Amino acid sequence: MSRAGQQTFVYDRPPAIAAHASIVGPKEGQGPLAEWFDTVLEDDLLSQKSWELAEMEMVRRCVLDALNKAQLPSEAVQAMLGGDLNNQIIASSFAARTLGMPFIGLYGACSTFAQALVIGSALISGGYLENAACTASSHFCTAERQFRFPLELGTQRPPQASRTATACGCALLTAEGEAPLRVTQGTVGRIIDLNITDANHMGAAMAPAVFDCIAAHLADTGRSASDYDLIATGDLGWIGRNLLLELCAAAGLDMPADRLIDCGASLFSREQDTHAGGSGCGCVAAVSCGWLMKRMEQGELSRVLVVGSGAMFSPTSSQQAQSVPGIAYAACIERKD
Amino acid sequence: MSRAGQQTFVYDRPPAIAAHASIVGPKEGQGPLAEWFDTVLEDDLLSQKSWELAEMEMVRRCVLDALNKAQLPSEAVQAMLGGDLNNQIIASSFAARTLGMPFIGLYGACSTFAQALVIGSALISGGYLENAACTASSHFCTAERQFRFPLELGTQRPPQASRTATACGCALLTAEGEAPLRVTQGTVGRIIDLNITDANHMGAAMAPAVFDCIAAHLADTGRSASDYDLIATGDLGWIGRNLLLELCAAAGLDMPADRLIDCGASLFSREQDTHAGGSGCGCVAAVSCGWLMKRMEQGELSRVLVVGSGAMFSPTSSQQAQSVPGIAYAACIERKD
Repeated sequence: MSRAGQQTFVYDRPPAIAAHASIVGPKEGQGPLAEWFDTVLEDDLLSQKSWELAEMEMVRRCVLDALNKAQLPSEAVQAMLGGDLNNQIIASSFAARTLGMPFIGLYGACSTFAQALVIGSALISGGYLENAACTASSHFCTAERQFRFPLELGTQRPPQASRTATACGCALLTAEGEAPLRVTQGTVGRIIDLNITDANHMGAAMAPAVFDCIAAHLADTGRSASDYDLIATGDLGWIGRNLLLELCAAAGLDMPADRLIDCGASLFSREQDTHAGGSGCGCVAAVSCGWLMKRMEQGELSRVLVVGSGAMFSPTSSQQAQSVPGIAYAACIERKD
Repeated sequence: MSRAGQQTFVYDRPPAIAAHASIVGPKEGQGPLAEWFDTVLEDDLLSQKSWELAEMEMVRRCVLDALNKAQLPSEAVQAMLGGDLNNQIIASSFAARTLGMPFIGLYGACSTFAQALVIGSALISGGYLENAACTASSHFCTAERQFRFPLELGTQRPPQASRTATACGCALLTAEGEAPLRVTQGTVGRIIDLNITDANHMGAAMAPAVFDCIAAHLADTGRSASDYDLIATGDLGWIGRNLLLELCAAAGLDMPADRLIDCGASLFSREQDTHAGGSGCGCVAAVSCGWLMKRMEQGELSRVLVVGSGAMFSPTSSQQAQSVPGIAYAACIERKD
C-alpha cells in the first residue's frame, strides 16, 4: 500500500538521500547554524548583474555541489524538482536551463522544498525516476522588491515580519545506494485560510496550515508527535511557532515543545534583529540540507518530520484585499541503521 | 518497468479519465471549437470584482463541473494538481482553498496542464492517489496586465503575439473505473533556450522545447509520430507550429503535418484577429478537455499525444535582457476499446 489515510504517501521503496548541499548568504552565515552550511557566500550578488541572476547562480551551484558529493553527472538525474519565490519561478527554471536536466517546476511558496521531497520521493519509489534533485531557493533582495518594497527605499519592516533568507538547499534522491537517510512518507496539505490579511504576518497566516498538515499526517499514519525526534517546521518564525503550539493545545494534539523546532526561528539569532525570524523557500531547504540531515547522519536524530509551509498569496491578491492562504507539506526522513 | 529511456514515465496502472470539463470566455466561444466546450462564459468577469477573482472562480467552477460529471464529492479527491500564469499561481491556489482538496501547485507556464497530467498519472499509477483533479487556467485580462500592459492602455500587440485564452480545463483522473480514456505515458521535458529575447514571440521561444520533448518521447518509447492519430501541441500558435515542422525536418524527424495540430492555432479562427493564435495555460487545457477528449470518446481518435509547452520567463527576466527559455511535457492519452 502506497497510501495511508487521505493525504499521506507511504513510499514502498523509500528513496535514499545520496547527497545534500546547502548555500546561505552572508547574514545567514553569521547566525547560530553557520557551521552547518556547506557554503557561506561572502557576496550575495555572486558577481552577477542582478539579484535575480544571483539567485539563479546560487541554485545552479547548490545542485552541482550535491551532484559532486554524490559523484553523479547531471545526465544521471532524470528530473530536477524545484521552485522559488520569484514570479514564474525564474530562479529555478533558469538554473535548470544551465543544468540541462528535465525540469518539474513546483510552486508551494516557502513549502516548496518539502513539496519537492514529497513528489520526488513518490516518483522515485514508483520507479519513474532513478535520481532526482529536489531544490528550493530564496534571496532576501529578490523577495523584498517583489513582495514588499525595493531595498533602496529603506522601508522599515514591521515587528511581525520575517526576513526572507538568502539560501538554497538541494537533496539528491536516489533509488539505489547505501546512504543512511531515506524519505519514507510524505503528506500533501490543504489550503487553509483563517482570514489573515496582513501580508507581513506570515507566521500567523501559515500556522493553521501547518497544524492541519501535521494533524493529517499523524492521523493518517497513526503516529503521535513524540514518535519523531524532531518536527521541523519551516518557516513560521518565533511568532508562528508559538501560534502552532497554541493551535495544537486547543485541539488536544500533544506536541512536546522540545521536539518542535522551526527552521526560520533557528537560522538567525534574536540579536540579528530579523524580527520574526527567517523565511523563504531557501530557509527550510538549507536548514534541512545543512543542519538537520547532517545531525541525522551523525546519529543524533533518527526520525525527523520536515514540514514546509507556504503562504500562497501575491502582491496582487493583497492589493485586492484578499486574505493570505497557507499550505504545508510534510516529509518524513529516517535514518536506517 | 515504470520508465522508458531518460525522460518518459510508463504508467503500469494507467489512470482513467473519469471526467473532464472545460470553460472558455466569450471570444473563445466565438471560435471554431465553440460547440465542444462545456461552458462558454457570457461575462468573462464572472460577476467578480477583479479579473484575478474571475479566474479563480472559473477554476473552481471547472473542477466542480468535472466532479459533478464523475459524481464524486470533493472529499474523494486526494489532490488537485494545477497552476496558472498569475504570479504565485493565485488563481489555482485560491480555487483550491474553496474546494478543500489537498493541493499540489505546479508551474510550467502554458505547459502546466500537461505537467499536471504527467505528474498526476504517476501518483495514481504508483498508488499514492485514488483520484486527482488535474487543471490549469488562464485569463486574457489577468495575463495582459501582468505580462505586458494593462488593457486600459489599448496597447497595440505585435503580429507575432498570441492571445492568452480565457479558459480552464480539468481532467479528473482515477485509479479505478470503466472510463474509456487512459493516460498511458508521460514525458518530462528539459528547459531549452535558443536565445529568443522577444517576449511577444512565444511560438519561437517554445518550438525548440516542444521539438526536444517530442524527440525524447519518441526515442524513449521507440515510436514514430505516425503511431499517433494526433500530436496536439499547446500552444505554439500558427507561427510556432510552422517552426516546429521546420525543426523536425531539419533533424530528420518524420512529422506528418496532417497529424500535428496546435491547440492555440485551433482555438481561434484567422478572422478573429488574434495574431499568432491562442496561448495560456487554459488553452491547451480546455482544448484537450473539450475538443480532443470528446473526439476520442466518440471513437474518432484512439491515441493522442498532448504536448503542453511553456515559456519560463517573467517580466523581470525580460527587463534584465534575459532570453525566454521554453519547456514542454507530453502526455499520451489512449482510448481502450
